Amino acid sequence: MNRTQLFEQITKKKSYLCVGLDTDIEKIPKHLLTAEDPLFEFNKQIIDATHEYCIAYKPNIAFYESLGAKGWESLQKTLAYIPPDCFTIADAKRGDIGNTSALYARAFFKQMNFDAITVAPYMGEDSVRPFLDFEGKWVILLVHTSNPGNADFQLLQTREGKFLYEEVIFASQLWASADQMMYVVGATHAEKVAAIRALAPAHFFLVPGVGAQGGDLKAVSRFGMNGQCGLIVNSSRAIIYASTKEDFADVARAEARAVSDMMARLLDEYCR
Amino acid sequence: MNRTQLFEQITKKKSYLCVGLDTDIEKIPKHLLTAEDPLFEFNKQIIDATHEYCIAYKPNIAFYESLGAKGWESLQKTLAYIPPDCFTIADAKRGDIGNTSALYARAFFKQMNFDAITVAPYMGEDSVRPFLDFEGKWVILLVHTSNPGNADFQLLQTREGKFLYEEVIFASQLWASADQMMYVVGATHAEKVAAIRALAPAHFFLVPGVGAQGGDLKAVSRFGMNGQCGLIVNSSRAIIYASTKEDFADVARAEARAVSDMMARLLDEYCR
Repeated sequence: MNRTQLFEQITKKKSYLCVGLDTDIEKIPKHLLTAEDPLFEFNKQIIDATHEYCIAYKPNIAFYESLGAKGWESLQKTLAYIPPDCFTIADAKRGDIGNTSALYARAFFKQMNFDAITVAPYMGEDSVRPFLDFEGKWVILLVHTSNPGNADFQLLQTREGKFLYEEVIFASQLWASADQMMYVVGATHAEKVAAIRALAPAHFFLVPGVGAQGGDLKAVSRFGMNGQCGLIVNSSRAIIYASTKEDFADVARAEARAVSDMMARLLDEYCR
Repeated sequence: MNRTQLFEQITKKKSYLCVGLDTDIEKIPKHLLTAEDPLFEFNKQIIDATHEYCIAYKPNIAFYESLGAKGWESLQKTLAYIPPDCFTIADAKRGDIGNTSALYARAFFKQMNFDAITVAPYMGEDSVRPFLDFEGKWVILLVHTSNPGNADFQLLQTREGKFLYEEVIFASQLWASADQMMYVVGATHAEKVAAIRALAPAHFFLVPGVGAQGGDLKAVSRFGMNGQCGLIVNSSRAIIYASTKEDFADVARAEARAVSDMMARLLDEYCR
């Protein structure tokens, strides 16, 4: 899905919500555990319930990988089930030397047909390049994350007086355009979102910090939106585990709809 | 395997060689492709041929992941097959927010029983902590990698006049001791190995840059060794693909033995 198509979906659904499929075998409703593939059964019902209100799904790969071969099967089935009008993000945070990154790219882009993958920048351009070599696919680079440890290195200042995360933005804009690259921008400090938007006016930001991680949707939208929305805001636990009983899918639908209603208003107000 | 046991193995085998299991379905000998599980069959024969001459195996997770569920099965079988006197490293370069890193830790340490995993530092302490919470297991943190892109961020200088990779060493030494943490130190510039040894005298370094990536074993050993060896030097392609014919295991054995012979001499000379 390219940038124009993504913005079309946002406009059509009046939503920039991404539902994070952090599907934890220990947290899903107990009645699903007798299904042949409980993770897939959970995801299927969540997708059925929420796809009208969101424009993307983001499986968190660790949750599948921690179940070994069975988990990979659940992931592949989930990918195949997501409707084609939804953008798909592998939250994998990979990044390795060239020939290894090329294999990760093949796994997520070719074998599973994800639209995008999250990538860690520490190893530099040649660790990211193989993901960019896949036409029509996206790299979502870690820039300023929302966890407490973001201060350890991302907020180090360089000799030129820039934060490390700013250096990542400057360097990576030479590697690819806003048609191929997005940035992970945590929402725990809205003023940071504004500062990063100033450095990267055209790029989409994947914002993971709204909901369980404490970010504020209104502030993020006000400071982060651009003329093509420019935001994909993720919510995982607040939607998929809103109820852990048999009504989980209905409650997830209501939660996704509530977020999406708020997003429709915020798009009217700030997307210009 | 703890640090004392690791050094015992090094002393006993007179080797600090790690064989990298970058097992590529497109590169293994053609006659193995009819086996029920070609990746495992290849690894099994490589392990049989080399385990006397090496002290560690390092499966590169991308090679297995790129084959999906089947690849994970090959990886699990490989892990179970590695003799217990060999240290096992998941070259996975993971690193995510706390609850996600905890799942990766569970996958690699509990489900597959690896001794160690490579971890990327960009997201800071709380992204590394869950791996350290597993008693008796090791984090091998990316510090100074051997790929060309290492200059992009690792060699940025901070306001205090330090390289980013030095900041990673300083910060991470507060997170864990040399009994739980190792560092990935590329060998393409031997003088860097000496500089990093000065900053981290006790830590083991995993050195991936010898062989196909061009590092020089003698220089690395001279500048990097400490009184407990302190080095695990990896070689992947130069050993496992030394021949791609039916004699691949015998040729791998000869290569591993040749490296190990050289290591025995270097241990005599520099491990003190």
